[in-house]
Amino acid sequence: MTVADRGLPVAVPSTALFTDQYELTMLQAALRGGTAERQCVFEVFARRLPEGRRYGVVAGTGRVLDAVENFSFDGKVLDFLRERGIVDEPTLEWLSSYRFRGDIHGYPEGEVYFPGSPVMRVQGTFAECVLLETVILSILNHDSAVAAAASRMAVAAGGRPLVEMGARRTHELAAVAASRAAYVGGFTSTSDLAAGFRYEIPTVGTSAHSFTLLHDSERGAFTAQVESLGSGTTLLVDTYDVTEAVRTAVDVAGPGLGAVRIDSGDLLLLAHRVRHQLDELGATQTKIVVTSDLDEYAIASLAAAPVDAYGVGTQLVTGSGHPTAAMVYKLVARADSDAPGAALRPVAKKSMGGKTSPAGVKWAARQLDEDGVAMAEVVGTGTVPGELASRLLQVELVRGGEVVAREGLDTVRDRHKEALAGLPMSAMQLSRGEPVLPTEYV
Amino acid sequence: MTVADRGLPVAVPSTALFTDQYELTMLQAALRGGTAERQCVFEVFARRLPEGRRYGVVAGTGRVLDAVENFSFDGKVLDFLRERGIVDEPTLEWLSSYRFRGDIHGYPEGEVYFPGSPVMRVQGTFAECVLLETVILSILNHDSAVAAAASRMAVAAGGRPLVEMGARRTHELAAVAASRAAYVGGFTSTSDLAAGFRYEIPTVGTSAHSFTLLHDSERGAFTAQVESLGSGTTLLVDTYDVTEAVRTAVDVAGPGLGAVRIDSGDLLLLAHRVRHQLDELGATQTKIVVTSDLDEYAIASLAAAPVDAYGVGTQLVTGSGHPTAAMVYKLVARADSDAPGAALRPVAKKSMGGKTSPAGVKWAARQLDEDGVAMAEVVGTGTVPGELASRLLQVELVRGGEVVAREGLDTVRDRHKEALAGLPMSAMQLSRGEPVLPTEYV
Repeated sequence: MTVADRGLPVAVPSTALFTDQYELTMLQAALRGGTAERQCVFEVFARRLPEGRRYGVVAGTGRVLDAVENFSFDGKVLDFLRERGIVDEPTLEWLSSYRFRGDIHGYPEGEVYFPGSPVMRVQGTFAECVLLETVILSILNHDSAVAAAASRMAVAAGGRPLVEMGARRTHELAAVAASRAAYVGGFTSTSDLAAGFRYEIPTVGTSAHSFTLLHDSERGAFTAQVESLGSGTTLLVDTYDVTEAVRTAVDVAGPGLGAVRIDSGDLLLLAHRVRHQLDELGATQTKIVVTSDLDEYAIASLAAAPVDAYGVGTQLVTGSGHPTAAMVYKLVARADSDAPGAALRPVAKKSMGGKTSPAGVKWAARQLDEDGVAMAEVVGTGTVPGELASRLLQVELVRGGEVVAREGLDTVRDRHKEALAGLPMSAMQLSRGEPVLPTEYV
Repeated sequence: MTVADRGLPVAVPSTALFTDQYELTMLQAALRGGTAERQCVFEVFARRLPEGRRYGVVAGTGRVLDAVENFSFDGKVLDFLRERGIVDEPTLEWLSSYRFRGDIHGYPEGEVYFPGSPVMRVQGTFAECVLLETVILSILNHDSAVAAAASRMAVAAGGRPLVEMGARRTHELAAVAASRAAYVGGFTSTSDLAAGFRYEIPTVGTSAHSFTLLHDSERGAFTAQVESLGSGTTLLVDTYDVTEAVRTAVDVAGPGLGAVRIDSGDLLLLAHRVRHQLDELGATQTKIVVTSDLDEYAIASLAAAPVDAYGVGTQLVTGSGHPTAAMVYKLVARADSDAPGAALRPVAKKSMGGKTSPAGVKWAARQLDEDGVAMAEVVGTGTVPGELASRLLQVELVRGGEVVAREGLDTVRDRHKEALAGLPMSAMQLSRGEPVLPTEYV
């Protein structure tokens, strides 16, 4: 098979290839050594939040469930592994009937998390769990990073609509996941048609500078746009002179013009000036959309400006300085022996120099103060203290290989809003700070 | 169709969905207004390099060609656009037979670039060119960002092999593109099986801490691994005590042990200590692989250490601080009128406040000094000065919609090495600096 035959630049036959080779070689060695069937528990957690961030946002859970369902080794994949000599025949045979049959629990998507929060737990045989490491981490690390940035931007926007426009600044399919994560974090819509198609996120978009430049005059461009898209459209007014463009826009579309978009210059100044001009022209209902290298700080700085919506690109899809969430997937317990029904034994890396973490299967609960505001993320092993039993964070996601908790994105988005509302007020500060809840191990 | 029916979390029917909605609404308005068929030239360029970077690396060109070939609107996509009311019926009809029939020129993949370098040029009707904006930018911005980081890391590694291990730190398909871009930039292999499958990049990987923890003893783990994978395998020696692990490793595998991997702690100190120990144990050919949050600076700091290979994850796939290349896709010329064969007229955005760029269709050439070392990136419109005619950078990629310049990744990788070798020595400095070549407009 030549590369050209493979079609789409993103085509792969299944999620089973989103795997680091060592997962398969470990499987081979464990199959041969007789330890592959030991019951294991792997946990996903972040040792820390990105520097200065006050909370993390769990995102990608729904995509993880899709990935686990589609994780199987078909003929094409097995041929590849055989031709490359990556694993031996007994391992290929084992892989050919692989389906994940274990259990997955985790923080529900949209929930917030803190350092050490056990955001996902994968339980089953070593063989079936070890294979999922890379794909689970890829999804959670990417999507959670974007959702965290989106959440901060949504806080900064204070209820004004936010449009995700970053597709051109990231990998074409990372863009689709980014739109989804942005929606979870509080964005309103996306410019990315693939995200609209794949996740039913509302899509928006009208025109770029090239459309104005295509025409012999700005008036010609605005006229063509309004004739085709109606006067409710958004006209881009910063190709030549903004004041002139706003005058032409209202002249062409009438005072019922939907919106104008400003994509360069001093947005604070321009928004005030354009609002004044629109009002003078009688276009009092015409909205102002701003888009130009915005991040949460730029959005916040426009809070007092007459802006009706923000479009955000680069800084959203790159996690506003933190493009990955640094989550890891660690074996925390495994069967004490090869005997059937052997008890689980806590395990952890122990060498000097970092990367250690607490052993054992963990529960997590959010402790509240008397006003119902979260005051600590409590993470423990063993019995859950009675007063925390009703505040447990993990839910069942997969039972015996079957997905049991598929959710719509609006449910997830609402959950995030609610989780954020349950945090201390300081969670909403954009300035650098410590995690807003301490993680307490019991 | 429900989301669950859509299969893979990354499945889309064609690259035509990697499009911002405004490209389609502009198309609709242009079709209606009669300007859709005007000949246009769009150029891709970056206004600046990421702060402190001395050169950029063009990567993703091959993926752009795949994307353009697969850019068509099938029934599923058209149904989606119709159901959502994104464009009108005449536009859907037009899209149903869309294939790009224009021409694309560009810097060949692997070439270096500087601020203003016209790295790609797309020429055809407005309608056919405007649709490609997002997918071309997504690919070039992502892949070039990763390749630039990879190139710096390869310079820092000074010929030692570099393994790409970042799949878990980025979107699962961004990871595949990142492996490819890393290979272009000078990496040797990848841990990502999808990248091996899709792009035939060599894959590597043996075991993680979980494999050691699965076993009742480290010796048991090493024995199982060596029995299955052979003594040429790489044993991970930092789960418990490194010195003890190295002793056990050589004891189990013999002095012919392939390699040991150190994934935490003070790598400089540990590499020296482990080399000394391996040599004392007679394992003088056993290699040392280090992997732990490396970036180009950490790699450079290990130049004098007895390290045989580096594995790099997070910092590679996130562009070492610059996860996107900030390239834009701008209309620079269009037919002067609707008359057939009308001359091209240079156009550019002109408003105050930034985001302007030179109008007109550009050529680019690299000017050399008398020793054959590059001294300037010359970008111009109109006639190419005679002395630069043999140094033109753009090549033909697509002619009349047909890809004419498909290349193997090894060709691209070699080109990058050669391009880098042609730059002034200061290009190799890792410290922050200005672009190593000035861009001169003529």
